[in-house]
Amino acid sequence: MIEKYSFGQPLETGAVVRTVSQSTQPFQLMQLTQSETGIRLSCQMDDEDVVYGLGEQVRGINKRGFSYISNATDDPFHLENKHSLYGAHNFLILSRKNDRSFGIFVDDPGRVVFDVGETKIDSLCITAGKNCVVYTIEGESLKEIVKQFRELIGQSYIAPKWAFGYQQSRWGYASAEDIREVVKGYRDLGIPLDAVYMDIDYMERFKDFTVDAQKFPDFPAFVTEMKEQGVHLVPIIDAGVKVEEGYPIYEEGVRENYFCKDEDGEDFTGAVWPGKSHFPDVLNSKARAWFGDKYRLLMDQGIDGFWNDMNEPAIFYSEKNLKHVMEEVTSLKGENIGLHSFYHMKGLVEGLSNNEEDYKSIYHNMDGVRIRHDQVHNLYGYNMTKAAAEAFDRIAPDKRTLLFSRSSYIGMHRYGGIWTGDNASWWSHLLLSIQQMPSLNMCGILYTGSDIGGFGSDATEDLLLRWLEFGIFTPLMRNHAAAGTRDQEVYRFGRTQDFRNVIRIRYALLPYIYSEFMKCALNNEMYFRPLAFDYPQDAHAPQVEDQLMVGDSIMIAPVYRQNATG
Amino acid sequence: MIEKYSFGQPLETGAVVRTVSQSTQPFQLMQLTQSETGIRLSCQMDDEDVVYGLGEQVRGINKRGFSYISNATDDPFHLENKHSLYGAHNFLILSRKNDRSFGIFVDDPGRVVFDVGETKIDSLCITAGKNCVVYTIEGESLKEIVKQFRELIGQSYIAPKWAFGYQQSRWGYASAEDIREVVKGYRDLGIPLDAVYMDIDYMERFKDFTVDAQKFPDFPAFVTEMKEQGVHLVPIIDAGVKVEEGYPIYEEGVRENYFCKDEDGEDFTGAVWPGKSHFPDVLNSKARAWFGDKYRLLMDQGIDGFWNDMNEPAIFYSEKNLKHVMEEVTSLKGENIGLHSFYHMKGLVEGLSNNEEDYKSIYHNMDGVRIRHDQVHNLYGYNMTKAAAEAFDRIAPDKRTLLFSRSSYIGMHRYGGIWTGDNASWWSHLLLSIQQMPSLNMCGILYTGSDIGGFGSDATEDLLLRWLEFGIFTPLMRNHAAAGTRDQEVYRFGRTQDFRNVIRIRYALLPYIYSEFMKCALNNEMYFRPLAFDYPQDAHAPQVEDQLMVGDSIMIAPVYRQNATG
Repeated sequence: MIEKYSFGQPLETGAVVRTVSQSTQPFQLMQLTQSETGIRLSCQMDDEDVVYGLGEQVRGINKRGFSYISNATDDPFHLENKHSLYGAHNFLILSRKNDRSFGIFVDDPGRVVFDVGETKIDSLCITAGKNCVVYTIEGESLKEIVKQFRELIGQSYIAPKWAFGYQQSRWGYASAEDIREVVKGYRDLGIPLDAVYMDIDYMERFKDFTVDAQKFPDFPAFVTEMKEQGVHLVPIIDAGVKVEEGYPIYEEGVRENYFCKDEDGEDFTGAVWPGKSHFPDVLNSKARAWFGDKYRLLMDQGIDGFWNDMNEPAIFYSEKNLKHVMEEVTSLKGENIGLHSFYHMKGLVEGLSNNEEDYKSIYHNMDGVRIRHDQVHNLYGYNMTKAAAEAFDRIAPDKRTLLFSRSSYIGMHRYGGIWTGDNASWWSHLLLSIQQMPSLNMCGILYTGSDIGGFGSDATEDLLLRWLEFGIFTPLMRNHAAAGTRDQEVYRFGRTQDFRNVIRIRYALLPYIYSEFMKCALNNEMYFRPLAFDYPQDAHAPQVEDQLMVGDSIMIAPVYRQNATG
Repeated sequence: MIEKYSFGQPLETGAVVRTVSQSTQPFQLMQLTQSETGIRLSCQMDDEDVVYGLGEQVRGINKRGFSYISNATDDPFHLENKHSLYGAHNFLILSRKNDRSFGIFVDDPGRVVFDVGETKIDSLCITAGKNCVVYTIEGESLKEIVKQFRELIGQSYIAPKWAFGYQQSRWGYASAEDIREVVKGYRDLGIPLDAVYMDIDYMERFKDFTVDAQKFPDFPAFVTEMKEQGVHLVPIIDAGVKVEEGYPIYEEGVRENYFCKDEDGEDFTGAVWPGKSHFPDVLNSKARAWFGDKYRLLMDQGIDGFWNDMNEPAIFYSEKNLKHVMEEVTSLKGENIGLHSFYHMKGLVEGLSNNEEDYKSIYHNMDGVRIRHDQVHNLYGYNMTKAAAEAFDRIAPDKRTLLFSRSSYIGMHRYGGIWTGDNASWWSHLLLSIQQMPSLNMCGILYTGSDIGGFGSDATEDLLLRWLEFGIFTPLMRNHAAAGTRDQEVYRFGRTQDFRNVIRIRYALLPYIYSEFMKCALNNEMYFRPLAFDYPQDAHAPQVEDQLMVGDSIMIAPVYRQNATG
């Protein structure tokens, strides 16, 4: 049973696809407090209660003991004390032993805080803005609550079948020749490979939808050459559009007012990979259609898969704030800099990226309504991905195109998957990835996986092997690494037979994995489930943080500790 | 059996106390390669071999699968990919199933790299400088190898009995009143407390051996007042001496040339808490005696315990490098800063602290021999602590004074303990602490423990409780937290009875803990041992990374996961 409670004048986020009428009942499941700044929902938790959900966040499957803040953030250090990662997934279930369990979804695209017993160990407290919609869901079981929620938010994106194969990526494949070598590395060892990713290196000066002709002479022919070898090329698309005279996308965007604005109504300028950039106003339907249509530039060359990146949106620095910081720093020159000035300077420089004040200086035109960015911050990545998916429906309606995103909000699962962002080659991130999967599935995000082997930092042979062993089961099975880290294609290491065996097991299981995925997508179910979802009578199940149910018939207990055998 | 191999012209580090003659045998346990830059020792490892040791480092009890670099570093982020923490403990044991196990100690106070199967999964490779001494130790068992090593390096420091009680610390107790409140907080709840720490707040402008008379009017009377309540006050001593005219320690040090020098023979200036500071040349015996005698200034006021901090030494920035960075940054002003310049600027500012080039510009006068700091970097904290311990022998020869340090080198265990530095309120750091204990004990460091509840970041009630449960067994049982983090004295939380029970168990076990500690110190044994040390025939024991033997008769299996019961 779903109840809907609207507060203030909520924006239409598009998270929900079913029409639900406002509840005629007072809000009773939690204690509701309303103030000028927003709403606060709270309740007591018994010792044995468990909280599931919240999608892409740190810590365990049971979210108790920490506060989580929905505030899409480009932060590669997914540490225990980070309150926000790349997505905003405001759905949780309070699983209670001595009372009815319930789910709650807070449809608010601004900052929402879930204090799950951090401040007070037995108290769950949710703080949201004054304009939002809250849905509560009661049901017979945890699975049933999830199913109702998933019906509310609509059917999950289904990736093309080839995207369930093994995939290789690295920031640093700088040319067609580099990619040919990767494919050869796999083919020579008889290890299957279905896709190679193209990170930011492929573009001409990091301009979206361009391909550097020097690195990739005759790109369409290269795409075909790779396809003939069974390899799909998947280019990255960044949110920021380079400011450069003569670059058609920049010029069109400026001319048609398709970019986000600053306080003065000028196109907002922030720096990302291309340097100074503007940001497509994907919350505006015309701009969204315009930006989406640009994917055709690559699809016409044979591309059939994309990953949308930097769409929190990440901002290295804004022009305005950089100017301010430079002034502050230079004013210290010659002065006898004391500790206070030193830390002030350090803080200013560190605070340039993803700066809250910058986000407050960006404005959207939501089809006629001017909205300050921080109020809808968590919708940006979602709408960039929606832009692409809607365009694919126009451009290639009869086929499935691969699409996943870094940032997301509930609802985006209908348009694409996500990968879990820039993790590191840490054993703790392998465990984190295991723990994130069921939480993401609860929110409809089924096509997902982590960067296998870890993105930042140096992978070791055993870490990569163990991560691949878990990766056998994630719909997105991609090995990805950052520039400057150790090479981690499997053929870089000695134990070839082990790697070959693991990846071949993936392929042997593909019929199971793909059909279970499809069933979950079509029936609004979870592909990865905590044990307690399947065994509600088992008193120990809620404690198990490192085993998962996968589809109907498999339980996995991945190894995630270095030097462990088994 | 111990064999000694000298290479080049090694410095006397003082790590070893027994005279061992140079081996008459060629070096055979590992493959030795000598080059102009240093020595390289390598050998193969079988799959079942385990590497123990290396003291204060990240990762598990079994050190396989990563590289560790001996390079004392002030870095609070003890992450899986950090190669160096605060100490340098160049002793490991290769435990082999199919061959004789052996220990190896590399007595080199410069940078030493232990690649324990990171580069090649089955290869152990040690790289040291050209002037060093290598000791190899063979024995009947792992315990026996450790015992021989410990006899070689001398008897461990023994703390006073009161320092085995429960202790409370926080960076932020800013006055006598603050400390009285802490003591009252514990006394009111009937929870035992033996010491309160005084972090940098107590000093007058962060000047070593001063007490701020405004915050602590009549300090000796306050020390007595606390003693009457059974509470010892333990002030921090930092390595850096404030540059301030009229401050006697600064003026004496300058006059007598007791500070480290720069390339030009001037006193080296780096900034730490007091701002511009000089660093006592504790590698010089006269300077060491002079600095050690200063502890008397506080001992005369009733103080009987100290912790030596910032002695890697940490340097926030050097005058010279800051000037350089400011020039580089200001030269960018007005320019159209591109990404490259931006990251260059960010890197410069981030690289100001603990800068390798700064360390290469510092010089010691080792009793007549001028030595560049980077060659003896890892001896600094050791010798600061030695300065204090030697002074205690002069000042208070008939009593035990509490002393522990942040930075250390093998040999320092004779003069004091260590705490494991600025950890965070992370569950992973609780586990890390469990895993570090036996490795530290191998190197003679017996009086040790981690900051219970975590120093950085916000502790939760359950984390603190679990950490205390483990802390029952660590000789140093201290709750410590950083300024700006959540209050974590146990009386800040609701479950008072649980906290009281746990701390009282510590006191109930004190007879065991203290006598086992004494036995281990006197007999050169380990108080904390991996299971495999006691159960060499148990095939599973080498896999166990989260249980320890404590003393003769106890095995512990601490809970280190959030929301786990038991």
